[in-house]
Amino acid sequence: MSQPESPRREAVPALDAILGKRFDLGSDGFVRVVDYMGSDAAIVQAARISYGRGTKKSLEDRGLIRYLLRHRHTSPFEMCELKLHLRVPMDAWRQWIRHRTASVNEYSTRYSVAIAEAQVTPPDQWRLQATGNKQGSEGLADEIAGAELTRREAELQALAREVYEERLEQGVAREQARKDLPLSTYTEVYWKIDLHNLLHFLALRMDAHAQQEIREYATLIGEEIVSRWCPFAWEAFRDYRLEALALTRIEAEVIAALGAGDSAAAEAVLKEAGMLEAGKKGLRRNRERQELEEKLGRLGMACPWKEDRAQAKEAP
Amino acid sequence: MSQPESPRREAVPALDAILGKRFDLGSDGFVRVVDYMGSDAAIVQAARISYGRGTKKSLEDRGLIRYLLRHRHTSPFEMCELKLHLRVPMDAWRQWIRHRTASVNEYSTRYSVAIAEAQVTPPDQWRLQATGNKQGSEGLADEIAGAELTRREAELQALAREVYEERLEQGVAREQARKDLPLSTYTEVYWKIDLHNLLHFLALRMDAHAQQEIREYATLIGEEIVSRWCPFAWEAFRDYRLEALALTRIEAEVIAALGAGDSAAAEAVLKEAGMLEAGKKGLRRNRERQELEEKLGRLGMACPWKEDRAQAKEAP
Amino acid sequence: MSQPESPRREAVPALDAILGKRFDLGSDGFVRVVDYMGSDAAIVQAARISYGRGTKKSLEDRGLIRYLLRHRHTSPFEMCELKLHLRVPMDAWRQWIRHRTASVNEYSTRYSVAIAEAQVTPPDQWRLQATGNKQGSEGLADEIAGAELTRREAELQALAREVYEERLEQGVAREQARKDLPLSTYTEVYWKIDLHNLLHFLALRMDAHAQQEIREYATLIGEEIVSRWCPFAWEAFRDYRLEALALTRIEAEVIAALGAGDSAAAEAVLKEAGMLEAGKKGLRRNRERQELEEKLGRLGMACPWKEDRAQAKEAP
Amino acid sequence: MSQPESPRREAVPALDAILGKRFDLGSDGFVRVVDYMGSDAAIVQAARISYGRGTKKSLEDRGLIRYLLRHRHTSPFEMCELKLHLRVPMDAWRQWIRHRTASVNEYSTRYSVAIAEAQVTPPDQWRLQATGNKQGSEGLADEIAGAELTRREAELQALAREVYEERLEQGVAREQARKDLPLSTYTEVYWKIDLHNLLHFLALRMDAHAQQEIREYATLIGEEIVSRWCPFAWEAFRDYRLEALALTRIEAEVIAALGAGDSAAAEAVLKEAGMLEAGKKGLRRNRERQELEEKLGRLGMACPWKEDRAQAKEAP
Repeated sequence: MSQPESPRREAVPALDAILGKRFDLGSDGFVRVVDYMGSDAAIVQAARISYGRGTKKSLEDRGLIRYLLRHRHTSPFEMCELKLHLRVPMDAWRQWIRHRTASVNEYSTRYSVAIAEAQVTPPDQWRLQATGNKQGSEGLADEIAGAELTRREAELQALAREVYEERLEQGVAREQARKDLPLSTYTEVYWKIDLHNLLHFLALRMDAHAQQEIREYATLIGEEIVSRWCPFAWEAFRDYRLEALALTRIEAEVIAALGAGDSAAAEAVLKEAGMLEAGKKGLRRNRERQELEEKLGRLGMACPWKEDRAQAKEAP
Repeated sequence: MSQPESPRREAVPALDAILGKRFDLGSDGFVRVVDYMGSDAAIVQAARISYGRGTKKSLEDRGLIRYLLRHRHTSPFEMCELKLHLRVPMDAWRQWIRHRTASVNEYSTRYSVAIAEAQVTPPDQWRLQATGNKQGSEGLADEIAGAELTRREAELQALAREVYEERLEQGVAREQARKDLPLSTYTEVYWKIDLHNLLHFLALRMDAHAQQEIREYATLIGEEIVSRWCPFAWEAFRDYRLEALALTRIEAEVIAALGAGDSAAAEAVLKEAGMLEAGKKGLRRNRERQELEEKLGRLGMACPWKEDRAQAKEAP
Repeated sequence: MSQPESPRREAVPALDAILGKRFDLGSDGFVRVVDYMGSDAAIVQAARISYGRGTKKSLEDRGLIRYLLRHRHTSPFEMCELKLHLRVPMDAWRQWIRHRTASVNEYSTRYSVAIAEAQVTPPDQWRLQATGNKQGSEGLADEIAGAELTRREAELQALAREVYEERLEQGVAREQARKDLPLSTYTEVYWKIDLHNLLHFLALRMDAHAQQEIREYATLIGEEIVSRWCPFAWEAFRDYRLEALALTRIEAEVIAALGAGDSAAAEAVLKEAGMLEAGKKGLRRNRERQELEEKLGRLGMACPWKEDRAQAKEAP
Repeated sequence: MSQPESPRREAVPALDAILGKRFDLGSDGFVRVVDYMGSDAAIVQAARISYGRGTKKSLEDRGLIRYLLRHRHTSPFEMCELKLHLRVPMDAWRQWIRHRTASVNEYSTRYSVAIAEAQVTPPDQWRLQATGNKQGSEGLADEIAGAELTRREAELQALAREVYEERLEQGVAREQARKDLPLSTYTEVYWKIDLHNLLHFLALRMDAHAQQEIREYATLIGEEIVSRWCPFAWEAFRDYRLEALALTRIEAEVIAALGAGDSAAAEAVLKEAGMLEAGKKGLRRNRERQELEEKLGRLGMACPWKEDRAQAKEAP
C-alpha cells in the first residue's frame, strides 16, 4: 500500500474531451462537466487498500468493479467525485435538491435578477394524467388542446415576468419581488457529488416512474457523462442496478413452486400473503400481485391464476 | 453507566402542553409540533456516558449544558429530536431545504392537487431593496405603490390558479400542470431534525441577514418551541451563539492595542491587513473594517481612524 | 393535513415494556433501549402528507408500509428514531462506527479509566479461516487447540491490563495510557439512528457475510427491538429486504431462457458475459456464476452447464 | 454564468509538486496526497454563480474567499475535495472516524494479515495526566520512569503480536485473531473529504485541547497540504477561525463595561451570570470566569475582580 504512486493526478481523456461542453435539454436547460476527481482506476485503488499488498495482481479491474457494485460495497465508489453546472427549471430542481448528499451552489435571486427564461411546453408535449398511477402521466393531449394550453402558458409566463419587473422598477427588494415567479423559471447550479451517491440518484431518477423532466437530465448525465468517466462502473451499474430484477421472499417462493411445476403450491403462497383474494368479478385487484405478474412476464413464465381467471370469465 | 434507568420515556410537560397546536404565520402558514424525543436531561445523560460513572454528581445539569454548548461539544445535542409540521411558501421552502441534515416528507403535487393558497403580501409589507447589502431589504414601499403592487399580485396569483385548473380540467397530468405555479404557493412538510442541527438552522435563519419570511419561522420555532422543550439549551444558545461576538485575529489585535491606549499600534495592524487604505475622500470603503467598527461600537470602544477621517473632512 | 392530531406523543406499549431492559450478549456486552420516537403509525402519517387529504381511508396501514418498503420510498421511515445504549468490544465498534448516519456519544477513555472488561473467547468458540471467502470464517478449532488459545488470550489480556494500570500509577495521562489496550476491550455508547438507516444497518450486519460478533448485535436489535417497535415495518423488511433475491440482468436473462426450456440460450447469455469459460478441468471458477447457481438452487432450478461438467468428469 | 470555461481541469502546481510524497509522523505513520479537485479558484467560481453575471470583476478572489470564510458561507468550500492516504494508529483513528462527512476505505484485517507495526513511545515521550483538565496531559514522565514504561510497552506489544501469529498458525480466522491487537497497531486509510469539512476537522483537531497524536496529523495536513492547495482559504482560516476569539454575550458585556472604565458594571454582569460567587478563600472556582480571564489576558485587559482577590489574600 505504501508504494509510491506516479505523481500525477489520474485523468480520463474521454471525459476531458467534453469538459465544459454544454449538453442542451428542454427549452433552455443544460448540463456541463466542470471538474472531476478519480476514475475506474480510483475505485480499484481504494478497494485494494482493504485487501493489502498481496492481492494486487489477483483480480482484474473490471471484474473487481463489477464485484463491488454487485455486492453493494459502496465505499470505493465514493472516492470519485463529479462537479456539474446545471441549468434546470425550479420545479425539477425541487425534486433534485431532495438528494442530500451533494454539495450545491445555486444562482441567487436574492442577490441577482432572476434568470429571464422559463421552461416552455410545446403544443405536442402536454402529458395526460395516468389513470393507474396517481403520480404519473401517460399519453399526450391532442394538438388543438395542446395549442391552447401553450398559448395560456405563454400568457401566464409573460404576466409573471411583467409583474416581477414592475416590482423591481418600484424598488421592491429582489428577495421579495421573486415570490410569484413561476416554478418553470430556470435556475443554475453547481452540483458536486460522489459516484456512489450519483449512481443512487441515477437509479431513482432514470427509473420509468421518475418525472420525465428530471429523467431526461438523469439519463443524459448517465449516458453522456458517467459512461465516459467510469465506463466499467457504468456498465456494472446497468447490469446490476438499472436492469436488475429484485424478487421479494414471496415472489421467490412462487417462482420456485412454478419452476417445479407445482402451481397449487404457488397459489398457496400467494393466498397466505393475501395476494389472491376473490373480488366480485374474478380476482381482486392487488398491486403486489401485479408487480409479480410483470416480473413473471420478464422471466417468460406464465401465471396459472391468471389463466384460472380467464377460464372463469369464459365459463358460461 | 449501566445503572437501570426508570422505564419510562423522558417527557417535557411544557412541550406536551403545545403538542399539535398551530402557531400561525404569514398569510396562511403555520408550525406545529408533531413529536419529540429527549430534553435537557437527555443532553446531560449522553454527555455523561463520556465521563463514566464517577462524575455523575459533580456537575449540575444547567452548568454542563452551558459548558457543552460554549465549547461546541455538539454530539450530546444530537440526542434530542424534534418533528414539526410546517405550512410554508415554496419560496421560503427553497431556502429551508438547503439544510441537509433533516428528514423531510413533503406534500406531493404530483400525487395531489396543489394547495390552493398562495402567500399574499399586504400593501404595507412591500420591502425595498437594500442599498448597502445586495441581498437584503430595508424600508417599505409607500402605501400607494404598495396597494398597486398588491393588486397586481392578486391578478397574477388568480391567473396562475386559473391556468392550473384549466390544465387539470383538460386532463393534463398533475406533475406537469403544476409547472407554472407561483413560488408563493404554500406547501406542507413534516420536518424532523436533531437539536444540534436545529440550533445551527436557527443560528443562520434567526440572523438579521436572513430573509424576513424564513426568519419569522425560525424565530417562532426558537422562541415558542425550543424554549419550552430544552430551556437550558435554549438559554445557552442565546448567550453563546445568538448573542455572541466573534473577533477575528486582526480584530483581537486591534482591540488589545486600543485597550492599551496605543492607537498607533491598532492602526498598524489594520494597515498590514490592508484595511486602512486611503481613497479619494478619506478612507477607502472596506467591509472588514466596517465589521470591526460595528463590533467596537458594541464594545463601547472608539475608532481612532474614524476620528481622523472626520477631522480630514472638517479640514478646509 | 391540517387536522388536529391528538395532543399526546405516539407510544408503543410493546416497546415501553422493555424500555431500559438489558439484553446481554457475548462475554460482557449488552443492548438497551433508552428512548424512541414514532412507530408504524408515524411512518404512515408521514407518507400520507404526500398524498394530501383525500386518500386517508384508501390504503390500510400495513399495506401502505409494505408498499413503501418494497418500493424503497425511504423518507417516511426516517420519521422514526431509536436511541440505544450499547456495550460492545472496540473491535466490533470499529465496524459499527462506519455507519455514518447515526448520532454517537461514546465512553471516553481520555476522561475516565478504561472499562475493565475485555471480550473473552471460550475454548469452543475459536473460528477457523474460511477457505473460499478470504474475509470469513467457517468451522471451529478443536477443543484442545481452543483451550490453549483461550489460555494465551487470558495471559495477554492480563498483561495488557497490568501495563495499563502501571501507567496510571506512574501518572501517565489516561489519553496515552490507553494506547495498547486490546481491541477486545469493551466500550459503551449511546447510539441514536432513524429507522430507515437502522434497517440499512441491519440489512448489512444481519447478513450471513457479516462478522459473527456484530451480527449477533444486529440480530438482537432486529428481532428483540425493531420487531416490537414497528412490527409492520419489521415484517416488510424481512419479506422485501432480508429474504429478498436480487437478480442481475444476466441472471434474469438466464432464468427466462431456462424457464422457456432453452438451455442453449441460457448458456449463450453466460458465455457472452464471460461466465462460462473453460479451464483445465471443466469450467473455470467464476464467482458470478457461483452466485447464479446459488440463486437457481433457491428457485429450485437446475443448471444445465453443471450437468455438462459432471458428465465431463465421469467420462473416461 | 454560461460562459465557456477553458476545457482543462483546474490544477494547483504547488500541490502537484508533493503529490504522492510521504510526510512521516510518529514511529511509523504517514500522510500522502493521493488526489484533489478544485483550488482557491474553484471556491470563487462556485460563490460567483450565486451572484450571477454582473459581479465577476467587482470582487477580487482573495477578498471574496476571506469574506466567505469570515461569514461562514460554507458551501463554496465544499466544491474542493482532497484525497489522502494515511497510516495512523488505530487509537487515533478511533477519534478520526468520528468525523462523519468523509469517505473512507480502510485496510481490512478481516481480509489481510494486520500491519506488523505498532506505535512505539520513546522514553522521553510519556505524558503526565493534567490536573486541571480531566481529559488532557501536561508535562512528561522523567527519563527513568519513561525507560521502564517503554520497556513494558515493548514487552506487551511483542506478546500481542506473538499471540496474534499463534492464532493465525492455528488456522484461526483473521477476523477473530485480531481481537486482542493493541490500539497502537497501525492501520491505513484512503480518506476523502471536502475543504469545508476538512477545515472543520482541522479547527477541532489542531486545537490545543486535541490529543497530541491526532493534533500532529491535523497540523501536518493544514500546514503542509492545505497551505499549498488553497493558500487564500488557508490564510483566511487562520485569521478567522484558528486564531479567532469568540466572546459570549456575557463576555462582550463585561468587556464593554471595562472599556468604559466601569468595573462595578463589569462585576454586576458577572454576578448576575453566577460567575463571581464567593468561596471559602476568595472567589469560588468558576470555569467560565477562567475562560473570560484568559480572553481578557489576550486582549491585554486587567480583571478588577482578580485584584480584589489578590488584595484579599494580602490582607493580614
